[in-house]
Amino acid sequence: MTALPLPSVAETTPAEPSLDRAKHLVADDMAKVNALILDRLQSEVGMIPELARHLIAAGGKRIRPTLTLLSARLAGHAGDRHIGLATSVEFIHTATLLHDDVVDESDLRRGRSTANALWGNKAPVLVGDFLFSRAFQLMVQDGSLRVLELLSNASAVIAEGEVAQLMTAGEVGTTEAAYFEVIKAKTAALFRAACQIGAVVAEREAEAEQALEVYGEELGIAFQLVDDALDYSAREAMLGKTIGDDFREGKASLPVLLAYARGDADERAFWERVIGAPENQAPPDLAEAQRLLDKHRTLEATFARARASGERARTALRTFAPSPHRDAMEDVIDFSIARAF
Amino acid sequence: MTALPLPSVAETTPAEPSLDRAKHLVADDMAKVNALILDRLQSEVGMIPELARHLIAAGGKRIRPTLTLLSARLAGHAGDRHIGLATSVEFIHTATLLHDDVVDESDLRRGRSTANALWGNKAPVLVGDFLFSRAFQLMVQDGSLRVLELLSNASAVIAEGEVAQLMTAGEVGTTEAAYFEVIKAKTAALFRAACQIGAVVAEREAEAEQALEVYGEELGIAFQLVDDALDYSAREAMLGKTIGDDFREGKASLPVLLAYARGDADERAFWERVIGAPENQAPPDLAEAQRLLDKHRTLEATFARARASGERARTALRTFAPSPHRDAMEDVIDFSIARAF
Repeated sequence: MTALPLPSVAETTPAEPSLDRAKHLVADDMAKVNALILDRLQSEVGMIPELARHLIAAGGKRIRPTLTLLSARLAGHAGDRHIGLATSVEFIHTATLLHDDVVDESDLRRGRSTANALWGNKAPVLVGDFLFSRAFQLMVQDGSLRVLELLSNASAVIAEGEVAQLMTAGEVGTTEAAYFEVIKAKTAALFRAACQIGAVVAEREAEAEQALEVYGEELGIAFQLVDDALDYSAREAMLGKTIGDDFREGKASLPVLLAYARGDADERAFWERVIGAPENQAPPDLAEAQRLLDKHRTLEATFARARASGERARTALRTFAPSPHRDAMEDVIDFSIARAF
Repeated sequence: MTALPLPSVAETTPAEPSLDRAKHLVADDMAKVNALILDRLQSEVGMIPELARHLIAAGGKRIRPTLTLLSARLAGHAGDRHIGLATSVEFIHTATLLHDDVVDESDLRRGRSTANALWGNKAPVLVGDFLFSRAFQLMVQDGSLRVLELLSNASAVIAEGEVAQLMTAGEVGTTEAAYFEVIKAKTAALFRAACQIGAVVAEREAEAEQALEVYGEELGIAFQLVDDALDYSAREAMLGKTIGDDFREGKASLPVLLAYARGDADERAFWERVIGAPENQAPPDLAEAQRLLDKHRTLEATFARARASGERARTALRTFAPSPHRDAMEDVIDFSIARAF
């Protein structure tokens, strides 16, 4: 397998991008979010906290609630309404992860996630519903109909995006525009709402809300683009992470769509075979796919689109005066894109 | 198989129970609900309306939205806020059906529902999420935080009830109290909220809301008890419906729990085998189960508890002056219980 050339982010930031400043700024608030998460996971039905903790304790980067916390402070919120709403955002995200984890019979041979292997399909779906309900209970407690509107809209759009992705699976002829519609829905909608509600709790004018909306959406797009590129990236392999998950699922992600569009007849036949009928993939197919992505430089093209979205997110932040919170939100952009390296 | 003795409802109503009066009273409102359902199922993602319509058009009795419509009018609401909220209740119900439909690998040999056979596991889960989100969008549009509170609480409790049911599956030693906790959560919580929001939109005092709360909860309990009995009933078999679904899933429903509690050592061993390990059931086991339920008269005992809940629901309605709507809501009780005959 040829190592892929590493694109440069020198133009966006000189230092190694890091979430340290952001984490430091929200540390106290995030401690409250974590406490609230544990509190609201309580249930007399023992399997619920057990299963939810498995996923939430594993934790990841908590990037979505971090965005709510940073946005609220950037927009000038001095109270603590953003704590409950950041928790709500994390619950919605976790619910979508649990539901995304559901496998069809035909998927089983491609392996399962930990949650699915431990608990099957049914329990994670129901625990996802529980978390989704808890998210709405937290919003009701906050009392803002505008926040409820933003997050119920986002939830509907996420579900639509996930279904649309299911429908384009295997379709190597999916257009770039259709791909962008899917990632805007399944990923960027929650990033956008997570940021927007920061302006809502700060009771800011429409301009501030709109700036945070653009920031969240563009950041979400960049985030998903980088994720989709990393699934094929030598860098991920070096980090010991699994690569090729999207490939094995026949996901019509941008690196593939571009390679198909730029490929000759033989290459197109290859993509139609491996993405259109992933169940018939052979072990060397992933390496061949990576060779073609490399040949047509489609990971670089994907990263370039991520950088463009990142720049639009950065521009949106200029609505706000310079501040440590604004700097931290720029760091989130840089970090999201620099995961590529 | 011995035909089961048919319990009598002579004490509750002289005429053949029917939903005709209820249906007639809400006919205009239900037409608006149906139109709103179709409107809110629209999505650019074609699979969503297709799959959702499959389930919603099949329609069933629309008992939960009927309760919201009747309750709102009984409580004196003169506007049309109950239309959107009845739609919301139906969406939540449909989402829970779709999610309940998800099967684990181990369940597959027991057969699939139509939705699951046509679309697998993944799409129904996502469409359920879409409907759930649409339900909250409708509530937000209505604008009552109290309604949002009632239905987000109900949704959390339903999920808890479904998980609790999953955990008691196969446990023939489950107590009657634990069984009641499960059906209160998974079924009665939505009946209760569906009725309560009628009082909320009518802006009635706490007494009216509480009366509708008790009515809904007791009706929901009665409804589920009858459902659980019917799964073993000769009447269902006569109507050409499948019986024994709960049995094949190893569901610890009340008729089984009571038969286990009343059984001798051999009978207990039978129940432990067939409910504890339903995957090892043999074809004659269902008939033997029915024989034991008959011997210990546990279907009658289950119906008796349903009638007791029905009477508590009827008493709660006495808070309201006599009216066609009150009569119709009594009919719903009688009809729910009389499904047994």
